[in-house]
Amino acid sequence: MKALVYHGPGEKAWEVVPDPVISDTTDAIVRVEATTICGTDLHILKGDTPEVASGRTLGHEAIGTVEAVGPGVTSVQPGDRVLVSCISACSRCQYCRDGHPGQCTGGGGWIFGYMIDGTQAEYVRVPFADTSTYRVPEGTTDEEILMLADILPTGYEVGVLNGGVRPGDTVAVVGAGPVGLAAITGALLYTPGHVIAIDLADARLKAAADFGADLTVNNGSEDAVAYVRSVTGGRGADVAIEAVGVPDSFELCTSLVRAGGRVANIGVHGKPATLHLESLWIRDITVTTGLVDATSTSTLLRLVESHKIDAARFVTHRFALDDILTAYDAFGRAADTGAIKVMMTR
Amino acid sequence: MKALVYHGPGEKAWEVVPDPVISDTTDAIVRVEATTICGTDLHILKGDTPEVASGRTLGHEAIGTVEAVGPGVTSVQPGDRVLVSCISACSRCQYCRDGHPGQCTGGGGWIFGYMIDGTQAEYVRVPFADTSTYRVPEGTTDEEILMLADILPTGYEVGVLNGGVRPGDTVAVVGAGPVGLAAITGALLYTPGHVIAIDLADARLKAAADFGADLTVNNGSEDAVAYVRSVTGGRGADVAIEAVGVPDSFELCTSLVRAGGRVANIGVHGKPATLHLESLWIRDITVTTGLVDATSTSTLLRLVESHKIDAARFVTHRFALDDILTAYDAFGRAADTGAIKVMMTR
Amino acid sequence: MKALVYHGPGEKAWEVVPDPVISDTTDAIVRVEATTICGTDLHILKGDTPEVASGRTLGHEAIGTVEAVGPGVTSVQPGDRVLVSCISACSRCQYCRDGHPGQCTGGGGWIFGYMIDGTQAEYVRVPFADTSTYRVPEGTTDEEILMLADILPTGYEVGVLNGGVRPGDTVAVVGAGPVGLAAITGALLYTPGHVIAIDLADARLKAAADFGADLTVNNGSEDAVAYVRSVTGGRGADVAIEAVGVPDSFELCTSLVRAGGRVANIGVHGKPATLHLESLWIRDITVTTGLVDATSTSTLLRLVESHKIDAARFVTHRFALDDILTAYDAFGRAADTGAIKVMMTR
Amino acid sequence: MKALVYHGPGEKAWEVVPDPVISDTTDAIVRVEATTICGTDLHILKGDTPEVASGRTLGHEAIGTVEAVGPGVTSVQPGDRVLVSCISACSRCQYCRDGHPGQCTGGGGWIFGYMIDGTQAEYVRVPFADTSTYRVPEGTTDEEILMLADILPTGYEVGVLNGGVRPGDTVAVVGAGPVGLAAITGALLYTPGHVIAIDLADARLKAAADFGADLTVNNGSEDAVAYVRSVTGGRGADVAIEAVGVPDSFELCTSLVRAGGRVANIGVHGKPATLHLESLWIRDITVTTGLVDATSTSTLLRLVESHKIDAARFVTHRFALDDILTAYDAFGRAADTGAIKVMMTR
Repeated sequence: MKALVYHGPGEKAWEVVPDPVISDTTDAIVRVEATTICGTDLHILKGDTPEVASGRTLGHEAIGTVEAVGPGVTSVQPGDRVLVSCISACSRCQYCRDGHPGQCTGGGGWIFGYMIDGTQAEYVRVPFADTSTYRVPEGTTDEEILMLADILPTGYEVGVLNGGVRPGDTVAVVGAGPVGLAAITGALLYTPGHVIAIDLADARLKAAADFGADLTVNNGSEDAVAYVRSVTGGRGADVAIEAVGVPDSFELCTSLVRAGGRVANIGVHGKPATLHLESLWIRDITVTTGLVDATSTSTLLRLVESHKIDAARFVTHRFALDDILTAYDAFGRAADTGAIKVMMTR
Repeated sequence: MKALVYHGPGEKAWEVVPDPVISDTTDAIVRVEATTICGTDLHILKGDTPEVASGRTLGHEAIGTVEAVGPGVTSVQPGDRVLVSCISACSRCQYCRDGHPGQCTGGGGWIFGYMIDGTQAEYVRVPFADTSTYRVPEGTTDEEILMLADILPTGYEVGVLNGGVRPGDTVAVVGAGPVGLAAITGALLYTPGHVIAIDLADARLKAAADFGADLTVNNGSEDAVAYVRSVTGGRGADVAIEAVGVPDSFELCTSLVRAGGRVANIGVHGKPATLHLESLWIRDITVTTGLVDATSTSTLLRLVESHKIDAARFVTHRFALDDILTAYDAFGRAADTGAIKVMMTR
Repeated sequence: MKALVYHGPGEKAWEVVPDPVISDTTDAIVRVEATTICGTDLHILKGDTPEVASGRTLGHEAIGTVEAVGPGVTSVQPGDRVLVSCISACSRCQYCRDGHPGQCTGGGGWIFGYMIDGTQAEYVRVPFADTSTYRVPEGTTDEEILMLADILPTGYEVGVLNGGVRPGDTVAVVGAGPVGLAAITGALLYTPGHVIAIDLADARLKAAADFGADLTVNNGSEDAVAYVRSVTGGRGADVAIEAVGVPDSFELCTSLVRAGGRVANIGVHGKPATLHLESLWIRDITVTTGLVDATSTSTLLRLVESHKIDAARFVTHRFALDDILTAYDAFGRAADTGAIKVMMTR
Repeated sequence: MKALVYHGPGEKAWEVVPDPVISDTTDAIVRVEATTICGTDLHILKGDTPEVASGRTLGHEAIGTVEAVGPGVTSVQPGDRVLVSCISACSRCQYCRDGHPGQCTGGGGWIFGYMIDGTQAEYVRVPFADTSTYRVPEGTTDEEILMLADILPTGYEVGVLNGGVRPGDTVAVVGAGPVGLAAITGALLYTPGHVIAIDLADARLKAAADFGADLTVNNGSEDAVAYVRSVTGGRGADVAIEAVGVPDSFELCTSLVRAGGRVANIGVHGKPATLHLESLWIRDITVTTGLVDATSTSTLLRLVESHKIDAARFVTHRFALDDILTAYDAFGRAADTGAIKVMMTR
């Protein structure tokens, strides 16, 4: 089969590799019918994650059809159309049993396109298939369901649930890229009073408004802290969600938030940030970090199925799977192309 | 009357000042019968809090007898023996109504010995007396109840409740001074599996063991992170409580804690700390900060009254109120004197 | 002034009574500009609550202008337009301080038109004015704000928050009268997967659909349990909200709910119900009861102000305050008149 | 092998049956070294659960050594000493993934000695062995670990966690049989202010006092409601735990509890109870029911291992496994024999 293979920093190729085979009783082999690219894939390609071995097939999001299952798989059958989640859940370790498979110590967690071969390929081996795949509901499209592989659960769990968004809250989302838009989408499920999108790019702020942010601030040209105070009677935001991954945006979040507020970090950081405890120690602030657990996937599937979430609008560009290198180019130059998520299909 | 008056950095005097009078309908005047000194008083005296005006009477902890009440006071009467809490609650602002009077925007919060004259005096004016004082239960001693003015609620609310301590947890407490000991006392209410005290001073570690920590580590001579991992099967602590207030001890807490764990900061910080998001972003960590709300005071009173908390043992040194300068000396040289809390009585 | 006075079971009159005066330092006198009628007022008039004294002015919902305040009132001033909440909060007792003023033991709770003279009058004395009134936001109408005096917080707190409604949930609301419609309105804030309204009257089911229930069942002609199972893959509802107040509807709720689900009772009951513990003991069911605390009022005000809740549509009939007896008639014959809430204005 | 076989109401025999064999990839075969009898076993023998087939081996609690495992089992190996939990967790269904394997829809839940052959035998087939067994920690005894198969997690999860016990609470436990004693043991982990045991038998009340209840009431001779009010300043208990399983004791719980309190039902009921909604609707009561999930087993193992829970004292009588009929007799006549839990060992 063909797969998108990482060959060290800056190097990738769409090339022939061996077909995956079942190697564990709980494995499934899935024929990939749609996949997408995540910002994390770009990080890996830059060489930011040296633990990724050269020769690794990238990608951790897919929809496809089950081709074969190991003898221990009971929930899915060959022929089933399934969503392949970015998180593999062994379901046996304490973290999985506590509802945190993102921290799985039993061989799961985030492993696709990282520790094992991923989904940007014609076929993929899916470990722990019973607890890491979801039947695609009737009457839904690949575009919308594919967004549940990673981005929507990430925005919802790591941003919105960790942030404890409640009806009437003022929610500031710093960073209006794909993950920020997913956080906005998730926050709106709780009917906040205001969703304030903050970004340096007007094009992304426009996207944020399209996705439902009722207020937007370009913090290159405007003082975001002053703005948030002005719309909250001086208090600050109830919740600030970090969706960039650099120290400045994290520190901005801790400045935006009211006494008693919450900062939910989603961004993937490469450097430490400064935590201004000299002013924050007294302010009852909660800061959370997290990798998605994908435990909200069933709920989000139900909401997409009942048209309560419009997931399809994340997909701005479509390609054939064989044109994945072109897709990477479009996604990598998002500022020019306006790409939010790109989809590659068979 | 006489009071301990702050006269700018490094300067204090036990001197005659005017008697306090009722200036608001919800005020009470309390005759102070026992008071104590907090680490924060030492900070003020060092000049770390320039917002404290010269001429301010210090102190925010007291037990005494109500002498007079304003016309709006209904819960206490002249003659009642009361605990004066370090937190004044206006009870009307949104923060008070949400259970967070520490963040009161209606004139309360932490104000004694800071924004208004405090409790290290023969008499004190107590604003919002209905919601800022507590009847002293029969059959209890001043020593034990005085510890509920600040230190025990602080350790319990900001350390233990924010930290989400649960039965069976491994709780690491960094800093075994008075606040750390209060956090240990509070943590034990939840029957943790282990309480690990970490400090640079063996004398404080000995105190921690006396207060119920079952494991102690001197992190001057031993690697605390390695130690905590060794006793938790490599996982790390479920909860780490910061009770020092310097960057190193905060950063240690974030290293001690397991994936999915919680860091509860109690320490009063003067400098920013580094938050290692490059490793923490993926680890599901929660960091909390906070000022005490004193909303647990009734609960803690009940537990002291029923001998479930031994609060008296915090008091290591006793003085006459007129000898308050000697008391400050003993408390300020705690490393030499072994002082945990000092009590001054009429 | 004139007031609607209860004269024992079945007897009421719009008659001249003495003007209210300030009797406590925390009182305000409010000139009533809009008031409404609650189902509870009808219960009182039937004689279901013998603790209500003859001579009592009825009503516990109002909007008006502050005429005078006692010396202990600091948050509102004469001239302020305020919402008068159905719940009076002393703010000092343990229940108030724990966020449950509905259970106030300090002289508050639900007292208007019950223990003290109420709001169906030209003027009303409002105890604990600081914590029992809310400024009417600019740009809102009396119709929408008046709905925050009781019905919307009741549906939201006692139905939706007690029921723990979460995004994607299936929520069954039994009873589509005014309180059931308020519960539906509140549930929609959390983007449930389905809201199923269940009632014996098709007209009320039509109102429920207008308010946003996506599914409706007439349980006079259809098996509601079978219906709810059919739309939930056999599981049952995640949350069932009782908004009638008779044994049958409560028992229906306990049959509708899935294992692990929640039954939130809002209805005012006059008789005991049967709890089928022989089948429920093993099913992880949670049943809650409750009186509104009105602690959500600020949040709901914000949501009405930002047009996230359309509160005005509850008001189907409008009358002059002097025509309150006609208004009672219209409200009392809701099945004929289609009344949801009636509003009387000066 | 030999097993205790149910032969219809009132009939049981210790007789030769076929050895169990692995029938699913996730099965283990465990050589039973210690087992016990539960009140539920007596219910089954009485014929209260007609769904139990004649020929069924009884029992759902055991400690033993793994003899063989299916190819899908990864966490335990032949030779491991394990605790066999009363709850089997498929770990794949939504209930298991939500942390509620007691409600497992994937073939697990409570099945031993009920839907499949149980543990009162020389060997037992254990389905879903990875997620339904626990390694026995070094340095512990069979007696204490065996109590974690059912009774301690049941008292802790269904009584204490559902009841939301917090430090300082007054906890009333109605019924001081084995499950009530387990609830008392669990409640004490949270340092309640008072644990009040209520029972009709003085011998059981004496056991409750030995287990740590500080107050006891015989509700045959004393008015338990009046007593609880008298020790709570008239308020009532914060939490009432039902550990009997008859309507009277449940109804007593709803009378004992304060406004805002919680009633946690553990009892196995055969008849409906009356819920006095005519008085409870306004009192903010929460009632929970539940089957144990055994999700607390790891935590409880840690607490037993660190001597924070004294589990061994539940075992009052010891027998050889071959004398199981004698053990049943002793357990069935607990009022005479004083049996709390009986243990049968190989």
